[in-house]
Amino acid sequence: MEGGATGEPPREGEVTPMEWRRKHVLGLADFSAEEIEFVIDTARSMEDVLTRDIKKVPALRGKTVVNLFFEASTRTRTSFEIAGKRLSADVVNFSSAVSSVAKGETLLDTAKNINAMMPSIIVMRHPVSGASQFLSRHVTCSVINAGDGSNEHPTQGLLDLYAIIKVKDKIKGLKISIIGDILHSRVARSNLHSLSRMGADLWLCGPGTLVPKEMVRFGATVTNDIREAVRDADVVMMLRIQLERQKTSYFPSLREYARNYGLNSEVFSLARKDAIIMHPGPINRGVELSDELADSSHSIILNQVESGVAIRMALLYLLAGGHNAAR
Amino acid sequence: MEGGATGEPPREGEVTPMEWRRKHVLGLADFSAEEIEFVIDTARSMEDVLTRDIKKVPALRGKTVVNLFFEASTRTRTSFEIAGKRLSADVVNFSSAVSSVAKGETLLDTAKNINAMMPSIIVMRHPVSGASQFLSRHVTCSVINAGDGSNEHPTQGLLDLYAIIKVKDKIKGLKISIIGDILHSRVARSNLHSLSRMGADLWLCGPGTLVPKEMVRFGATVTNDIREAVRDADVVMMLRIQLERQKTSYFPSLREYARNYGLNSEVFSLARKDAIIMHPGPINRGVELSDELADSSHSIILNQVESGVAIRMALLYLLAGGHNAAR
Amino acid sequence: MEGGATGEPPREGEVTPMEWRRKHVLGLADFSAEEIEFVIDTARSMEDVLTRDIKKVPALRGKTVVNLFFEASTRTRTSFEIAGKRLSADVVNFSSAVSSVAKGETLLDTAKNINAMMPSIIVMRHPVSGASQFLSRHVTCSVINAGDGSNEHPTQGLLDLYAIIKVKDKIKGLKISIIGDILHSRVARSNLHSLSRMGADLWLCGPGTLVPKEMVRFGATVTNDIREAVRDADVVMMLRIQLERQKTSYFPSLREYARNYGLNSEVFSLARKDAIIMHPGPINRGVELSDELADSSHSIILNQVESGVAIRMALLYLLAGGHNAAR
Repeated sequence: MEGGATGEPPREGEVTPMEWRRKHVLGLADFSAEEIEFVIDTARSMEDVLTRDIKKVPALRGKTVVNLFFEASTRTRTSFEIAGKRLSADVVNFSSAVSSVAKGETLLDTAKNINAMMPSIIVMRHPVSGASQFLSRHVTCSVINAGDGSNEHPTQGLLDLYAIIKVKDKIKGLKISIIGDILHSRVARSNLHSLSRMGADLWLCGPGTLVPKEMVRFGATVTNDIREAVRDADVVMMLRIQLERQKTSYFPSLREYARNYGLNSEVFSLARKDAIIMHPGPINRGVELSDELADSSHSIILNQVESGVAIRMALLYLLAGGHNAAR
Repeated sequence: MEGGATGEPPREGEVTPMEWRRKHVLGLADFSAEEIEFVIDTARSMEDVLTRDIKKVPALRGKTVVNLFFEASTRTRTSFEIAGKRLSADVVNFSSAVSSVAKGETLLDTAKNINAMMPSIIVMRHPVSGASQFLSRHVTCSVINAGDGSNEHPTQGLLDLYAIIKVKDKIKGLKISIIGDILHSRVARSNLHSLSRMGADLWLCGPGTLVPKEMVRFGATVTNDIREAVRDADVVMMLRIQLERQKTSYFPSLREYARNYGLNSEVFSLARKDAIIMHPGPINRGVELSDELADSSHSIILNQVESGVAIRMALLYLLAGGHNAAR
Repeated sequence: MEGGATGEPPREGEVTPMEWRRKHVLGLADFSAEEIEFVIDTARSMEDVLTRDIKKVPALRGKTVVNLFFEASTRTRTSFEIAGKRLSADVVNFSSAVSSVAKGETLLDTAKNINAMMPSIIVMRHPVSGASQFLSRHVTCSVINAGDGSNEHPTQGLLDLYAIIKVKDKIKGLKISIIGDILHSRVARSNLHSLSRMGADLWLCGPGTLVPKEMVRFGATVTNDIREAVRDADVVMMLRIQLERQKTSYFPSLREYARNYGLNSEVFSLARKDAIIMHPGPINRGVELSDELADSSHSIILNQVESGVAIRMALLYLLAGGHNAAR
């Protein structure tokens, strides 16, 4: 009896019986529809826990989760930290600003050192695409990719999908438009994989420099006209213009970008009446999204954040062997 | 049975029965004497916990406390962190140095995001006066102000009052002098509210630029003569000269300030024999307070720190509904 | 029943009965052979815990461990944090970057403040030699030195010794060579004390500027010839060239240092066939140690890291009175 918690794992009965065989979550490129549904089902059980007064289960007691962040990201790190703690894991934050990385240690040495302290799971964010994949080949613990360069951000992809399902109850057949800097966005890339796998009618939109025509290979419709993308859309997902990373000039000015590719009420009026607006945050208000829409009833941006904790609890739980031992 | 802890909340029997109705603690301006006494009584029960070998009760198990600090303050943050952990809360630190605030996110977006992760309480320090008030209107969780600009620092006010009571057993009728930069001090402001509410004979002292005459509106006696302030005082509370914030010249030089408004043994000899010296820390030794006095038996500076943990435990406990559900 | 853990302290039966009387661990200079063996025995019990699925015992429940780091060191800090959490302690990190130290507070005031929050143990790293000794005289809690200037790093000394024993089953009579900047290395100093106490045949090697002849006073053989040091060695312990601290020129260039004092396969072939290679990390690959050797089967560098968690658990456990109350 831990001061009121019943000690039980999330209600297994609600979860589709399936064997979880994955040791790492590095990207959604190779996730099957069945796996995606299984994660969503598990997240639903986790959300039950979050409705309780005592939002905690002992599933990961005695397991250590290390947040290994080589890029500043308090939101994502906090989401994983809260997810881990609600499963009773010991969560240790390791950020590059104060790390021996500053002393010139390689990623590999850092990771192997942490692995030698026997965590169950390393959650890593790193500026280089493929870093998580590389890491997973050299450690014995599980690895969750919390964003690697412009490659993937799989937990964001899954939480976006979960947030849509909570409103629309399905993905198949929905017109979902992703608008912004698709080229450099790991959020877009992970969403492309999961949403197309689940049968969405996917649209990609942005200036030609950021949304090259060859992106049709993802099975999406590509357009440079935001009106075309938004017209009759069920879901409009705006991406963040990463001002701090914008070294080359992909567009003439922020003002021009906002005018052509920012979402405002006039453009959004073309969408379906019950359309929803998403954004991975943090928002550049007045650039890619108007204040009015960001705070409107169509916006499910905060539901995305809420869904993020549940999705991350689900993945930590599955990787730590809560369902059936993966390691 | 959690390895020895009995799992009980602090002994309720010792606490005056009263209904706690406050959801946030933003400042002491509107605290009634009854409420102040109730917090002090609750802090006393908490201090009982702190005398035990296992300094921990499960009162906040499964609750999350987020320390949202937009100004560096390891001492206050650590005090809240220890307070939260001793109540078995999950404590998550979020500091602006590594946050998405650096990416230009507004305070409101940051706070709403954290709120969406369903903490029970956000403890916020922010350089802008009124920031906590603003925050409390936009989140569903409880908010504790850990210092907002030059406005209020209510937990400091309560811990100071508690530390005085532990020595003097009362506040009413005590001559209490606050000396230093009253104008910019949130510590002074919170103390003004609570000490005057409890009936102290309050004195404010400092150079005219930092203690304007109109401060008599707080019901305090204002003087620019430290000897007058210290004479027959029961409590001398020195404020920190915030060297790092001093942009304009409110006084000619540190040396001159120390000579006129620093407390040393010669000046302190004017106070009552059993007078006590207080300071919110960190001390500028040799500026506002001499080494000799800071380390003397009259100083209760470390008792203030000790009282801080108990007061913060009490407030976290009350806001999280330990006594009677506030939310 | 805490979700599966049995709640027992490490199996006492395996530990040599001895009374632990030490309140602080500041250095190994005054550690007796019996004490060293006692810590190693306790670490062995801790390692049993680490082989379990639930790597956690409630021994330090309700105790607070503060990591007070005035130098960046994520690895050591993380090792202590994981060690503390696996004993169920509340671990609070306090690093100088965001502390009131930046506001000019003295080490003593900072430490006394933390002490007033009633932690059981402060783990301190500080750039000044003797800082931990100083601290221990002014606080009521226990102090563990996590590295003080170029003086001592006792937990590193103990974990190195433990890592050697796990492979060689003894220390007495082994030829152990420490190679590099002995003069400035707290790691070397702590190892000198513990290894000589346990009867090793100790060799010190490096350029004359970094390994002065008078170091024979430690009871070690001093040489400037790496081949002499490595020949027939059982253990070769390479030290890190601290590039970031190297202000004066103790050697002409990194390239020359690597050529004369770096360990590579050709030099290492002079050692015993079953010789092991150690390094406190982080490694400057290609400077003091070649890639090939760092990753070879002779390297026990990651075992050192693993042993570190067990040694730190043992010390936290002993100081917190797990064995017989030290305070």
